[in-house]
Amino acid sequence: MKVTAAEIWNSLTELRRRSPLVHNITNYVVMNNTANALLALGASPVMAHALEEVEEMVDIADALVLNIGTLSKHWVDAMFKAAQRARERGIPVILDPVGAGATTYRTGTSHRLIRSVPPSIIRGNASEILALGHEEGNTKGVDSADSPVNTIACAQSLNRTLGSIICVSGATDYIISGNDIVEIRNGHPMMQRVTGLGCTASALCGAFAATEDNASAAAHAMALMGIAGEMAAEKAEGPASLQSRFIDILHSITESDIGKNLKQEG
Amino acid sequence: MKVTAAEIWNSLTELRRRSPLVHNITNYVVMNNTANALLALGASPVMAHALEEVEEMVDIADALVLNIGTLSKHWVDAMFKAAQRARERGIPVILDPVGAGATTYRTGTSHRLIRSVPPSIIRGNASEILALGHEEGNTKGVDSADSPVNTIACAQSLNRTLGSIICVSGATDYIISGNDIVEIRNGHPMMQRVTGLGCTASALCGAFAATEDNASAAAHAMALMGIAGEMAAEKAEGPASLQSRFIDILHSITESDIGKNLKQEG
Amino acid sequence: MKVTAAEIWNSLTELRRRSPLVHNITNYVVMNNTANALLALGASPVMAHALEEVEEMVDIADALVLNIGTLSKHWVDAMFKAAQRARERGIPVILDPVGAGATTYRTGTSHRLIRSVPPSIIRGNASEILALGHEEGNTKGVDSADSPVNTIACAQSLNRTLGSIICVSGATDYIISGNDIVEIRNGHPMMQRVTGLGCTASALCGAFAATEDNASAAAHAMALMGIAGEMAAEKAEGPASLQSRFIDILHSITESDIGKNLKQEG
Repeated sequence: MKVTAAEIWNSLTELRRRSPLVHNITNYVVMNNTANALLALGASPVMAHALEEVEEMVDIADALVLNIGTLSKHWVDAMFKAAQRARERGIPVILDPVGAGATTYRTGTSHRLIRSVPPSIIRGNASEILALGHEEGNTKGVDSADSPVNTIACAQSLNRTLGSIICVSGATDYIISGNDIVEIRNGHPMMQRVTGLGCTASALCGAFAATEDNASAAAHAMALMGIAGEMAAEKAEGPASLQSRFIDILHSITESDIGKNLKQEG
Repeated sequence: MKVTAAEIWNSLTELRRRSPLVHNITNYVVMNNTANALLALGASPVMAHALEEVEEMVDIADALVLNIGTLSKHWVDAMFKAAQRARERGIPVILDPVGAGATTYRTGTSHRLIRSVPPSIIRGNASEILALGHEEGNTKGVDSADSPVNTIACAQSLNRTLGSIICVSGATDYIISGNDIVEIRNGHPMMQRVTGLGCTASALCGAFAATEDNASAAAHAMALMGIAGEMAAEKAEGPASLQSRFIDILHSITESDIGKNLKQEG
Repeated sequence: MKVTAAEIWNSLTELRRRSPLVHNITNYVVMNNTANALLALGASPVMAHALEEVEEMVDIADALVLNIGTLSKHWVDAMFKAAQRARERGIPVILDPVGAGATTYRTGTSHRLIRSVPPSIIRGNASEILALGHEEGNTKGVDSADSPVNTIACAQSLNRTLGSIICVSGATDYIISGNDIVEIRNGHPMMQRVTGLGCTASALCGAFAATEDNASAAAHAMALMGIAGEMAAEKAEGPASLQSRFIDILHSITESDIGKNLKQEG
């Protein structure tokens, strides 16, 4: 399956018209950049994690983004509470299982979260997605984060079990929805030297999912991430100027920029 | 009432001479930018929120800035404790009621804070100020965040009740002190696409209030914010370069820059 | 004692080859910049503070960096637990006692930390190092943060007592190891107007210590900080562009840049 520049542009235009409120319960490292990326995109970010208010915040939000990058007990409790309310309200829930596979706490929390409230979209790198699959017992024989074939099989299995769109990011981003796979080949290696661009991608998935179906949202968000990152890297003198230019480009990108740069599996 | 470029410049010069220690109990999203803005301005920032130390930190601080942007129980407890000590010591307390009106927790916390220790300055956008006014029962008939007349009436009512300088930020910033109103017309629409510039404004109010009366401090801080934001926007390629240039300009701004750019209600 | 540009370059090359995982339990203000500095340098940062996972994270880490800049109870508990495990595993532990001397809580926590697990490297400014020394009762007669002689005596005393390499940063950085002193004279005054560059220095000490002896690691990290900061300041328009350029330069710095700029006590 493919997405077109026109579809991405129309989605972005619609997103800007609606300026969805994206409620983030995310990690300390990336909060500032996540908020700025959402603002540059045209969405309205809010960060709130207190048990006393997460449900009320979900009540006015158009999407909920959960990110376990610096998880701790109260924050995880808030994620469950917020996710439950988001499900009741029918707004999209995006999960970024940062570091799943690295510690039992991260893997276990991710796993409990996806069982409790199957997310609309799960976005992670290959090893995070494999960690989720392993836990689910769906991925026997999948032992290497290096094999795209195995990773895709795992993602498809998670998609079948949970109904979630699975987005595996990397040099190629795979967006898995049933038997459909969108493969985005944008991006730049220097993006790996900037902290939190994966977290930004998840937040952008949330912003798009507020205004369209989850599979399209994930594909459009990932394409835009990759294209903006590539354009930013072009004139960047290093990772900090890449980050700064990336945000500026999210704000000023044109349909023609998207058209010229979009790369997908043929 | 009006402020002059010379007054702003003299205040800034005095602030730089004293380099006041501004103690911030603020939200996770903006901490880095707030600290950098205070440093660029010439103040000394410190962030501390542990119940074990907030009073001691207030004891060496010249101003206390409270910001509820990512509030939770322990942080709110620390705000009360710090505010109480700040009142005892007679140093200015600035409140930024981020998101008051959005959730019961934020509105209620703001309200309890201003009753417990009436702030020297409250800075918020129109809807936040209206949320504070509503709670106080002082603003019957004020129903729209869109009407400057109603917002100003609400701010004046809060000012009478609490004695706090009320600063309502927006396209025009209103600084309310008794019957006096300063109206600053600086700023740039792209500033709304940068997270936390409102929080920065509150922190700057704290830095100025450490060295002069609260009404002047709020007016000088808001004028400087707007002018630096406008100058930053001029050559910015988007919101990230605006943020970066804004900090650089806070550091290098001259009296002549202020004189050329200051815009007030005639 | 002196370090050479070739030594710094070889260390950096080795660091990049290994890309050590640096586990940071640090303050909210600097997390983003710390992570980005480590990534630009060529290391792999991770932030994790939950009691549920710090030990497991230490188990896969190559260095542990503790920074008390926004300390609170649970975070301090996590620091002790992580430090204990790091000692058991024999990986380097770096302590940045931010604000030691400013409050009893900071001074006391730093002191308990260094007694419980003597760090591989302690990096702080003169007043922080003196606060640690005073507490240890090793620094009778040392009353002024202004006297390099007293500060060095205090650092040497701490070094003897704890076995830790003591790094005192300032206009001149002193790296104390037994009777050896490395004096780095790089850096730029505007670096003091950027929040968290000291914290970055401590994190870089961690990254280098993962791949070489602690004394060399501290000297190489401080030299690189100072050189990159100086180079960044050259074309910076203010503190924000200094920060951005600093990260870019960490990523692109060459052996020749180091050779041309390295300044040490003759």
